[in-house]
Amino acid sequence: MRIVSNLMDTLFNPSSVAVIGASLNPNKLGYSILKNILDYGFEGKIFPVNIKYDNILGHKVYRSILDIEEIIDDAIIVIPANIVNKVVRECAQAHVKNAIIISSGFKESGEGGRIREEELINIAKEGNLRIVGPNSLGIISSKNKLNATFASEQSAPLLGNIYLLSQSGAVATSMLDWARENNIGFSRFVSIGNKADFSENDFIEDTKEGEIVAIYLESLKDGKILRKIAEKITQKNPIVVLMPGKSKKIGSIMMSHSGSMATDHILLSTLFKQTGMIEVDSLEKMFNVIKTLSFSNTLPKGNKTAIITNAGGPAVITTDTLMQENMELASLEDETQNNLKKILPEQSNVHNPIDLIGDAQEDRYSNAIKIIGKDKNVDNIIVILTPQITTQVEKTAESISKLSKEINKNIFVSFIGGYSVQKGIQILDQARIPNFPFPEQAVYTIHKLYKYTQYKENAKEENIEQPQDTTRSNTILEIFQHFKDTKVLDPYSADSILKNVGIPTPQVIQIKSLEEANNASQKIGYPVVMKLSSEKILHKSDVNAVITDINNYNELEYAYKIIYSSLQKINDNNASIIIQKQILGGVNVIVGMVKHANIGNLILFGMGGVYTQLFKDISTRLSPISKRNVLQMINETKASYLLRGYRGDKPKDIDKLVDLIITVSNISQEYPEISQIDINPAIILNKGSGIYCVDSKIILE
Amino acid sequence: MRIVSNLMDTLFNPSSVAVIGASLNPNKLGYSILKNILDYGFEGKIFPVNIKYDNILGHKVYRSILDIEEIIDDAIIVIPANIVNKVVRECAQAHVKNAIIISSGFKESGEGGRIREEELINIAKEGNLRIVGPNSLGIISSKNKLNATFASEQSAPLLGNIYLLSQSGAVATSMLDWARENNIGFSRFVSIGNKADFSENDFIEDTKEGEIVAIYLESLKDGKILRKIAEKITQKNPIVVLMPGKSKKIGSIMMSHSGSMATDHILLSTLFKQTGMIEVDSLEKMFNVIKTLSFSNTLPKGNKTAIITNAGGPAVITTDTLMQENMELASLEDETQNNLKKILPEQSNVHNPIDLIGDAQEDRYSNAIKIIGKDKNVDNIIVILTPQITTQVEKTAESISKLSKEINKNIFVSFIGGYSVQKGIQILDQARIPNFPFPEQAVYTIHKLYKYTQYKENAKEENIEQPQDTTRSNTILEIFQHFKDTKVLDPYSADSILKNVGIPTPQVIQIKSLEEANNASQKIGYPVVMKLSSEKILHKSDVNAVITDINNYNELEYAYKIIYSSLQKINDNNASIIIQKQILGGVNVIVGMVKHANIGNLILFGMGGVYTQLFKDISTRLSPISKRNVLQMINETKASYLLRGYRGDKPKDIDKLVDLIITVSNISQEYPEISQIDINPAIILNKGSGIYCVDSKIILE
Repeated sequence: MRIVSNLMDTLFNPSSVAVIGASLNPNKLGYSILKNILDYGFEGKIFPVNIKYDNILGHKVYRSILDIEEIIDDAIIVIPANIVNKVVRECAQAHVKNAIIISSGFKESGEGGRIREEELINIAKEGNLRIVGPNSLGIISSKNKLNATFASEQSAPLLGNIYLLSQSGAVATSMLDWARENNIGFSRFVSIGNKADFSENDFIEDTKEGEIVAIYLESLKDGKILRKIAEKITQKNPIVVLMPGKSKKIGSIMMSHSGSMATDHILLSTLFKQTGMIEVDSLEKMFNVIKTLSFSNTLPKGNKTAIITNAGGPAVITTDTLMQENMELASLEDETQNNLKKILPEQSNVHNPIDLIGDAQEDRYSNAIKIIGKDKNVDNIIVILTPQITTQVEKTAESISKLSKEINKNIFVSFIGGYSVQKGIQILDQARIPNFPFPEQAVYTIHKLYKYTQYKENAKEENIEQPQDTTRSNTILEIFQHFKDTKVLDPYSADSILKNVGIPTPQVIQIKSLEEANNASQKIGYPVVMKLSSEKILHKSDVNAVITDINNYNELEYAYKIIYSSLQKINDNNASIIIQKQILGGVNVIVGMVKHANIGNLILFGMGGVYTQLFKDISTRLSPISKRNVLQMINETKASYLLRGYRGDKPKDIDKLVDLIITVSNISQEYPEISQIDINPAIILNKGSGIYCVDSKIILE
Repeated sequence: MRIVSNLMDTLFNPSSVAVIGASLNPNKLGYSILKNILDYGFEGKIFPVNIKYDNILGHKVYRSILDIEEIIDDAIIVIPANIVNKVVRECAQAHVKNAIIISSGFKESGEGGRIREEELINIAKEGNLRIVGPNSLGIISSKNKLNATFASEQSAPLLGNIYLLSQSGAVATSMLDWARENNIGFSRFVSIGNKADFSENDFIEDTKEGEIVAIYLESLKDGKILRKIAEKITQKNPIVVLMPGKSKKIGSIMMSHSGSMATDHILLSTLFKQTGMIEVDSLEKMFNVIKTLSFSNTLPKGNKTAIITNAGGPAVITTDTLMQENMELASLEDETQNNLKKILPEQSNVHNPIDLIGDAQEDRYSNAIKIIGKDKNVDNIIVILTPQITTQVEKTAESISKLSKEINKNIFVSFIGGYSVQKGIQILDQARIPNFPFPEQAVYTIHKLYKYTQYKENAKEENIEQPQDTTRSNTILEIFQHFKDTKVLDPYSADSILKNVGIPTPQVIQIKSLEEANNASQKIGYPVVMKLSSEKILHKSDVNAVITDINNYNELEYAYKIIYSSLQKINDNNASIIIQKQILGGVNVIVGMVKHANIGNLILFGMGGVYTQLFKDISTRLSPISKRNVLQMINETKASYLLRGYRGDKPKDIDKLVDLIITVSNISQEYPEISQIDINPAIILNKGSGIYCVDSKIILE
């Protein structure tokens, strides 16, 4: 008896599979899939289905899924697109549990295909049948000896712990092929295809103990669900993700100041970072990170790295890369240095990087590794070997392999060269020692993994800030009502909303004449700012709609003339002129929020004013956020230097800035009507003196 | 008869070589070197020298160089350091032309070694003998069948066009080994070692037609000479350079505003860029660029790149990388698209990237390459292959190899995978088609080579700006005289120098009392700036030494109190207070100059004020510079956006800014007494309204 705990388990561990479209022609995918299933040693029952044949590869062929008397767990469908839906309907009728649809000609191929896929989804729902694909390369479950893909025979995976999800069949075949050569094994593989039903979210949620998730993605099914799932999974399993498409500026999703910055790419990177997914930006880096995770059971405990080398040059390059990645070159303990002195030639360097000198043989490498292995200041060891005439490539590889199991550090190896080092690399691969053609790649990999270690540690003590008072303000709802058609709030109304939720804004008075302006300015006190308040002006600085530094009545009169003439030009009956207290001093920052239907509410922070756009010095998180997240956000920007007190300047009121960012995050949760908030500038005064949000824009959904 | 045109030719093409320290013991370098010379087929005469033996490897052994009756061209010296100088003296006596000193134990090994090396240099000079090394791995001249190194036998180089110079023996052995596996050949190789005599400059100058220079450097012998030599060589031969050490912040060489930015690394990168050297920052990139230059005779003519692929995913990653490197995804001609339609399946994409679909076989690749080969909008083609079940790896590799000779485009190939693509890669290597394990590396390489193409084109029309009037001003020389001990000029004197060379500065009046301040302000007109002028204050904004925006007498009085109290604090008898016209509006920039003894005068430009240091948005060139260089400098910074008129602002007076930068470059040439100039801010007003240098610092050598 076999106990099936859930649908996914049946998918990966079926008792019976049908190959609908199995073929006798070795050039057809229907042949390759059946052959792969047989060759990989599947132990369940196999039912080829094809109207044309009686027997394929020694198996009786059925004319239809309906002719099979047993209940089929997985049906692999590899037939022309135009008959897929008909066959899937038959599968539902036959109580097939999962259909893995290899056939293309669906959503990816235009309008006709899109309609076909819609229909397919409905058939599956009604028939209570789950679908992988369509347009999938298939699935593999190494443990269960199931290879239901058309990947070429020579790249059939070894058994291992990589759980590979790929939205591109081609990337997957390259990875399987590369992995085989590098002695890397897989637990499972799914080519998710068009994800009409099962998506990356379902598969990630199904991650099993000890699996390393590797994902190549081209789109997200649902970013909000992914966030919840990934946050949970990354506590135990690493998730490595490669999602290209940075260059596709899918369009700026924020119309106001922060402008073209908040593209989808920023949203995605924020999502990955905040959920602890390990994002890589090239295939090469993906391969290196996966190889390391697959080979090594332990993540780097810290970033303090020692370099052992028989060549100065590559050590310098490696040190450079360490510094660029903000990692630490370990300072060796005195005892370590003394012990190194005993075993190394006189002219060797006993500081880090440790240069064993060009004539180093296996013993010098071994001794150095043993000594460094005991140093408490070292977390990681990078061992570099260049093929000198006396170098013992294979013997050294063997020793490193042996020692890596004996010492309590992460070892990363780079044998640099061609023919002369090949056999050494094979030994390292066999012993599952992370190794790289160039030491720079080792550094990059350690950095990525160490950041994941840090994420896991921090995530334990995360306290997400959520709105405490969940009663929604009537004043705010009335303002929403008033702008429900035009969507863009005028500055006066945006200000009112901020005031209502307790965000400090400077005193402001609406005026209708120069006389009223004078009275307002006297009341508020010079210097003042005069603004045109209209929902029609977003970039006010472009149209003479803001005049600052008004110091006296003469300047006020001059300002009024200009603003009044702008007022007449813009043709907006609801427009008004406002006088605002001018806030002197402080650091100008931007705090913003952009809502994204698929991924969530993105919170932005950065340097304010003209520099926001020029330097794109912006940090981002998804709401809800923790206080620690907010402090990280601030520290990630150059604005933080100004806030901490730059060049003798007094430190600014960072506490109040943190409150502001959390409040913006909270109102984005409480008032889903809001699509964008853009406070620029918020002026952060000296510590204890608070902050003022001087200019705000709010846009409704 | 053999005609020797110069010393270098003798070095690389000797009639006779002696190996001093030749050995019978296969573990000794003296054995390896002699064996390499014999195995590589050297056709000249070979004289082993060793006091201990009579015969090594079938060659008569001499007890001393003085015992050999012939004149020796190259003596390879591989004996303990403490007897090297004695033996070199004998070599000089025996009229040996070149000594290649393998022995270490010189400058690299501390004070004793340094003294030994000094002595060696003197012996060589007196004896009219040239030296390679010491601490060298040796030299190779493939054409002349000379391998006088101790590199391992299996990495002995193939004949080719790479001219490799390496300051690290280990990097060199790794490169030779890697090159052999990748079918890359060398014309010559020199391990330059400690460069006691011959340095990188001599070897670069000796570059022969058709050679590709590849240099691994750890220090510069003389940057100014390198600039002159490299500028000439790069007109014909590419020079690829890897020089690690970025992380070694050797110390900030500029004490004033521009601060810690102008480190040695910036100087080096500026030198490489301005001389057209192709700088790479990792071994992997070095290898890729060299491989491509070695295989392909033609540089990319442009950056318009087409991608042909059997997989969507890698094409998206490649496009991303193209965009990141500011390269262009080629827009295909209509005719190309029509022709592609004819040969590709219906669902294929006939736009760039051209997706041949997963089942593409050799014919589809060939046809697509032929069609793209005729498109005038395409400069480069990247061909990507992933191993699908129907992919014809070897056949496709053969076709690409054939076609690359027939079409007039640069082809770069990436077969992504492991076992399945290995044979294809071998075919490409044999046919000398640039190919990379990952397509991202192809993009990086094209980018580097295209920048070199651009450099060569621009260099043709380069007009270096040099001082025209070379009479030195007495006023300036007097100021130098006055500050000859303290070195740091006070702002008033710095201003005077700028005025003297025709750089616009705001009107300034020295004052001694509030009354004088009032008179000065009335004369100049409010608003004014009050400054403390003292050589003791470099960061004036840190010590209440500058007050801006003084609008009236009240504010003037208040300012005077503050500045006067600072004046009393600083304890400088030469200090004074100055009143300066306040310049309103404009864009603040920094223009600076830092002199570096080895490399030259570095000219800096960037955004001024507090942002200079915060964003490190600085561009640099070495003086002298061309007008085109200056415009490039400006365009490389974000300040250029502000200068061109940002968000409706008027364009600024870039012409006058260009003049300013050229003037700063020129005075750095005319007045070598100056060590640093730091104008921050220079205010650039609207086009036609000129510029003002508001605050300047000058430091003497």
